[in-house]
Amino acid sequence: MNSINRRQIARKISIAENSGGLEDRELSDIIGNIGNAFRIGITGPVGAGKSTLINKLALEQRSRGQSIGIIAVDPSSPFTGGAVLGDRVRMTELTLDEGVYIRSLATRGAFGGLTETSADAADILDSYGFERIIIETVGVGQTEIDIVEACDAVVVVLEPSSGDSVQAIKAGLMEIADVFAINKMDIQGANRFVEDVEGSIHLKMSGSQPKVMPVIAVKGEGVTELLDYLDEFFQEAKSSGSLQERREKQRVKRIKRLAEMMISKQLWASFSDQDIQKLVDENIPVKQAAKQILTEINK
Amino acid sequence: MNSINRRQIARKISIAENSGGLEDRELSDIIGNIGNAFRIGITGPVGAGKSTLINKLALEQRSRGQSIGIIAVDPSSPFTGGAVLGDRVRMTELTLDEGVYIRSLATRGAFGGLTETSADAADILDSYGFERIIIETVGVGQTEIDIVEACDAVVVVLEPSSGDSVQAIKAGLMEIADVFAINKMDIQGANRFVEDVEGSIHLKMSGSQPKVMPVIAVKGEGVTELLDYLDEFFQEAKSSGSLQERREKQRVKRIKRLAEMMISKQLWASFSDQDIQKLVDENIPVKQAAKQILTEINK
Repeated sequence: MNSINRRQIARKISIAENSGGLEDRELSDIIGNIGNAFRIGITGPVGAGKSTLINKLALEQRSRGQSIGIIAVDPSSPFTGGAVLGDRVRMTELTLDEGVYIRSLATRGAFGGLTETSADAADILDSYGFERIIIETVGVGQTEIDIVEACDAVVVVLEPSSGDSVQAIKAGLMEIADVFAINKMDIQGANRFVEDVEGSIHLKMSGSQPKVMPVIAVKGEGVTELLDYLDEFFQEAKSSGSLQERREKQRVKRIKRLAEMMISKQLWASFSDQDIQKLVDENIPVKQAAKQILTEINK
Repeated sequence: MNSINRRQIARKISIAENSGGLEDRELSDIIGNIGNAFRIGITGPVGAGKSTLINKLALEQRSRGQSIGIIAVDPSSPFTGGAVLGDRVRMTELTLDEGVYIRSLATRGAFGGLTETSADAADILDSYGFERIIIETVGVGQTEIDIVEACDAVVVVLEPSSGDSVQAIKAGLMEIADVFAINKMDIQGANRFVEDVEGSIHLKMSGSQPKVMPVIAVKGEGVTELLDYLDEFFQEAKSSGSLQERREKQRVKRIKRLAEMMISKQLWASFSDQDIQKLVDENIPVKQAAKQILTEINK
């Protein structure tokens, strides 16, 4: 990838970021040119070791000749400049690589803005021929779950030492996981933790169950196996048609979200903040005020 | 509070929960009867000790004769039935108390649903005369931050042992905190951590800065001071007018969100999922598909 392309990518993602994913003029040339990349969503609690794992995964993917785009939505990720834990060295290792593009997205705007921006960023990287796209979030909030859910595969990273992890499984992560990567398998109680996770899965999920895979990210152990599994998962999903089905569902969801954003934009183009302030000043209850706005608009 | 009222509250919150906060018919009788309660939003990373602190705060508030409503939006909270850490005993202590009402809200629906539901639940408890309302979330996601931001005061709970906490400060929490409660002050490095937090605040924030308060939730240490400060904060905000200003801003935001939800609901009433599926089948790019829907609607 040459530097002109890198600049184009950076510019396009910035446009998507600043327009909240609404402007299609500047993004129009990527249309029709997407769908080849394998998008891997990676999430998990803070401290589970996601960033370390992603580093190792990316290095392994590079050694397999795959080009990689990394989108870090986690504001505390080392990729985002919040490198408080000394991850800069490893980051440099990847950023100097021509086959890697790393982009962080700041938490901004409510209303699906970040969900839409990260999907746009993935589309852009996809259109530039990146074969693997990793999207990283911290998986506690609904927005963060929405973001990784829009991927072809979801990896949830957990680690044995924190009681949090068991709680995290409860927090809506089990439903979206294709793989549970249990990190830090070299600490005490790790095997027991894996059993707990597997037990919870068998107990709660019928039908297709997420795979549980042990890793030690700092040592790179289990990374090859994880990547093998993911690549296999992707190929199988492609040939079975489940990938297309999954992507179609995601597109329905995304079209809905976009239409909702557009209609809201339309709404506020004809109804200003001052107009709302007037309703507040008149002490009109919130639901009634909102109804009044809609009545006004529907006239 | 008698059991009839408890049943009414439970029913009203359920209606708010199931309707995504849209139905005002059933909630109409609470209109005009709200605004007396002091709403305290409490958030922080998983494992910071929020639930323990809230237990102690609630017990202290009860000993001051204040009635308390607790809304736990955190799906991993002991209040929600996810009591993996043996919090059941303390929970019982509160649930048997007539002056306490505890309600958990499940993570459901995107689109501001949970934000709206928790605001509704707070309004309902407010209308039934609860003097203090605590709303608890896990503060990493945008939705969770939105929820506590809709309160009269925001307490962010951190603990010294995890590197996470420093990252948490970066993750948008500093902007919304009125108080940083530093929990687990009896572990090593706690004082240093307090200094770090204070340093970050002074470095990054001009104008009014959040207060940093040390606590040891399990021992109940610092809880009285925290509550004194919060009560004082509330009284001062009331008399200075800053409370009204804050609430008006929140109302503007809420009216906007409600209007957006209503207009989206309108949209999907006239455009079905099958209609969207057709656009997907025709392989129309997502943004174009969304535009097409709007063109259709605006006809």
